[in-house]
Amino acid sequence: MADVKAREAAASKERAAGDRRSTMEAAEGGVTAPLGFHSAALHCGIKAKPGALDLAIIAAEAPVAAAGLFTLNLAKAAPVVVSRQHLDRTSGRARAIVVNSGCANACTGEAGMADALAMTRATARALGCEAEHVLVASTGVIGVALPMPRVSAGIATAAARLVRGAGRETARAIMTTDPFPKEHAVAVHTAAGRFLVGGTAKGSGMIEPNMATMLGFLTTDAAVPPPLLRRALEESARTTFNAITVDGECSTNDSLFALASGASGVSIDDGSYQAFAAALHAVSRELALGIVRGGEGATKLIAVTVTGAQSERDARQIARTIANSPLVKTAVHGADPNWGRIVASAGRAGVLFDVDRTTVRVGGVLLFENGLPHDDAAPRAAEHLEGTDIAIDVNVGSGGGASATIWTCDLSAEYVRINGEYRT
Amino acid sequence: MADVKAREAAASKERAAGDRRSTMEAAEGGVTAPLGFHSAALHCGIKAKPGALDLAIIAAEAPVAAAGLFTLNLAKAAPVVVSRQHLDRTSGRARAIVVNSGCANACTGEAGMADALAMTRATARALGCEAEHVLVASTGVIGVALPMPRVSAGIATAAARLVRGAGRETARAIMTTDPFPKEHAVAVHTAAGRFLVGGTAKGSGMIEPNMATMLGFLTTDAAVPPPLLRRALEESARTTFNAITVDGECSTNDSLFALASGASGVSIDDGSYQAFAAALHAVSRELALGIVRGGEGATKLIAVTVTGAQSERDARQIARTIANSPLVKTAVHGADPNWGRIVASAGRAGVLFDVDRTTVRVGGVLLFENGLPHDDAAPRAAEHLEGTDIAIDVNVGSGGGASATIWTCDLSAEYVRINGEYRT
Repeated sequence: MADVKAREAAASKERAAGDRRSTMEAAEGGVTAPLGFHSAALHCGIKAKPGALDLAIIAAEAPVAAAGLFTLNLAKAAPVVVSRQHLDRTSGRARAIVVNSGCANACTGEAGMADALAMTRATARALGCEAEHVLVASTGVIGVALPMPRVSAGIATAAARLVRGAGRETARAIMTTDPFPKEHAVAVHTAAGRFLVGGTAKGSGMIEPNMATMLGFLTTDAAVPPPLLRRALEESARTTFNAITVDGECSTNDSLFALASGASGVSIDDGSYQAFAAALHAVSRELALGIVRGGEGATKLIAVTVTGAQSERDARQIARTIANSPLVKTAVHGADPNWGRIVASAGRAGVLFDVDRTTVRVGGVLLFENGLPHDDAAPRAAEHLEGTDIAIDVNVGSGGGASATIWTCDLSAEYVRINGEYRT
Repeated sequence: MADVKAREAAASKERAAGDRRSTMEAAEGGVTAPLGFHSAALHCGIKAKPGALDLAIIAAEAPVAAAGLFTLNLAKAAPVVVSRQHLDRTSGRARAIVVNSGCANACTGEAGMADALAMTRATARALGCEAEHVLVASTGVIGVALPMPRVSAGIATAAARLVRGAGRETARAIMTTDPFPKEHAVAVHTAAGRFLVGGTAKGSGMIEPNMATMLGFLTTDAAVPPPLLRRALEESARTTFNAITVDGECSTNDSLFALASGASGVSIDDGSYQAFAAALHAVSRELALGIVRGGEGATKLIAVTVTGAQSERDARQIARTIANSPLVKTAVHGADPNWGRIVASAGRAGVLFDVDRTTVRVGGVLLFENGLPHDDAAPRAAEHLEGTDIAIDVNVGSGGGASATIWTCDLSAEYVRINGEYRT
């Protein structure tokens, strides 16, 4: 646990160092912490459980700078297709995000496309903007049609209830199998003034780099030109939302949006970009790790760090293979310092390296070196594995200085229970 | 179940058609069914449980044609390195295979290499042959040294007990977490006479194409020149041992050996190659499917067949991604006809195809077509999923005629239990 925390602190310091004039601190309010954003969440009747929040709107006061990243899955859900088109057509401007949980509106054909468009139109009508300025996201069961009369009525009601203090309800309204809501915000003080970055996200199965059944909504009251906003979103996602995996799956609906209202009066330019990127990264990281902690059946957060690789790509590929290994994940679940499974999964990652020059550490404890185990160290590593924040470090000794970290969770019988019974 | 059986029968017919003059029938005796092979199995004390078989020798009467396929994992266990060297040096000739279970002799450094060599020397001494004519295989826990005094004594005893009727004990002696022994044999009648092909194999975790913690030993009393034996072994493994996956893992010790004694008097040449290859394939298929059926925690055998692909490589990659999807495997475990997870995993396989032209069938029941589900068919598919032999068929509609089948098993809570507690 100490290792992961220390590493997080170091990473945070390192990033803050990018702009020495700025400081960053945690803030309250989640996705509506930044000025200029309101939200509302309600139960419109997609989820069967009475009162379960299943619809939300996050809105700016006018069309603002916007950027989006989407699933790479060939089977893209209708809301993904519609949101991407809208961002393309507006060159990165949006007024609002409308989102529902309980139904993914994926594999729903032409009717599903019409429903996603209708969601944007209903939101636009209620807010008084163009439908193209509305982004839409859905999460839940695949292949089921949305109950559109309820959704439309819900949108009208939600649009009339937009407030600044409903960030928490909004975080709850996007959950499916997530065990807890995920939101975070930071305040950044720069020479040019103070701005906020906030966000909310949901998991929690089908999580794998390059988006997942993951929805993430980030907001800021800094003024950020759309190209800069997109660059910051891509850069920050690379080591946060795209560096996590729960089960190696990549879903049909993954969407990550960022909106920048400019309401703080602080404008981001090349000089202040690092401070903004660091804040976006801090919020993204917190939300991404929250998704892993709340992974289906997860009891432990595992940071797999590969160092000494020839390239970041190599390091990432090895880390990802270890992070997705069911044998490593079950060993961590059982608090078994089974370095053999770590070596074996690294060895099948498709990256060339010398196993005899590789070291494996669990919780900082050296377990494997020069092709041989350090058996006497196993009890100390086992003690680390009893905790909830696990560090697996593999140096592949290629002489290269490249490294990468992938976060994952353990694999428990509960994962099987959740996914064997999800629809039944 | 009917589907898989019918498909198997069709495949068998198809292959038999390669040589119309030959017929094939099941035979008793496993790995020692073919003439000219003897074996012995005993408990030498590697496994803690008293009497648990943990050492075996399979021997011909003199050095015979031999071929081997090995793990592609970078972390190759000592016995893999030694056996490969021996086959290289002898240009494909071997007198015997010595194998132990309970200890993988992997990640054991120079001492492990010395132990693997010592196993071949002890066997050679007992049989009166060169150490280079002995192949060695180990399976079990990684990173633990073999108890060599016990192993050496066991080898001497086993070599003195070689008999023809110990195929079953030999199949038992190579098991680790396997729930049942795997052996099979067939008799082939050709114009040139009758010959037999037999074999045994073990799983059962870390199973993935390109070998796994899989050991497989095949024998025949046909006379097969080493190059032809190697070609037949590679071809047959491609669609059998290399087309199965339990958990996507690839181990440090995977080895598949074939020995041809020639004791039947039947010589395999280009004319009779098809009959021999069909027999080797039939035995390999039975053993490979046995490994999947006996996969850790497995309750169902799943055949994932992808058709309509542009290339066999594409078809295989999509089939493998579906077969390794924890969400698909848990859905099958829960008898949930969740075609959405099948579509989503196919869509992230890294192969380009049109989801709207894709069809998904479970147990032959059409569940997804033209981008839309056939919900009314779900109950019939669910009924199929209650069985133990599951067929998932995906046509990706690329206009290509290429196809591939990958076999896997369901993912159960028992898998997690086995692998979370294996060492503890």
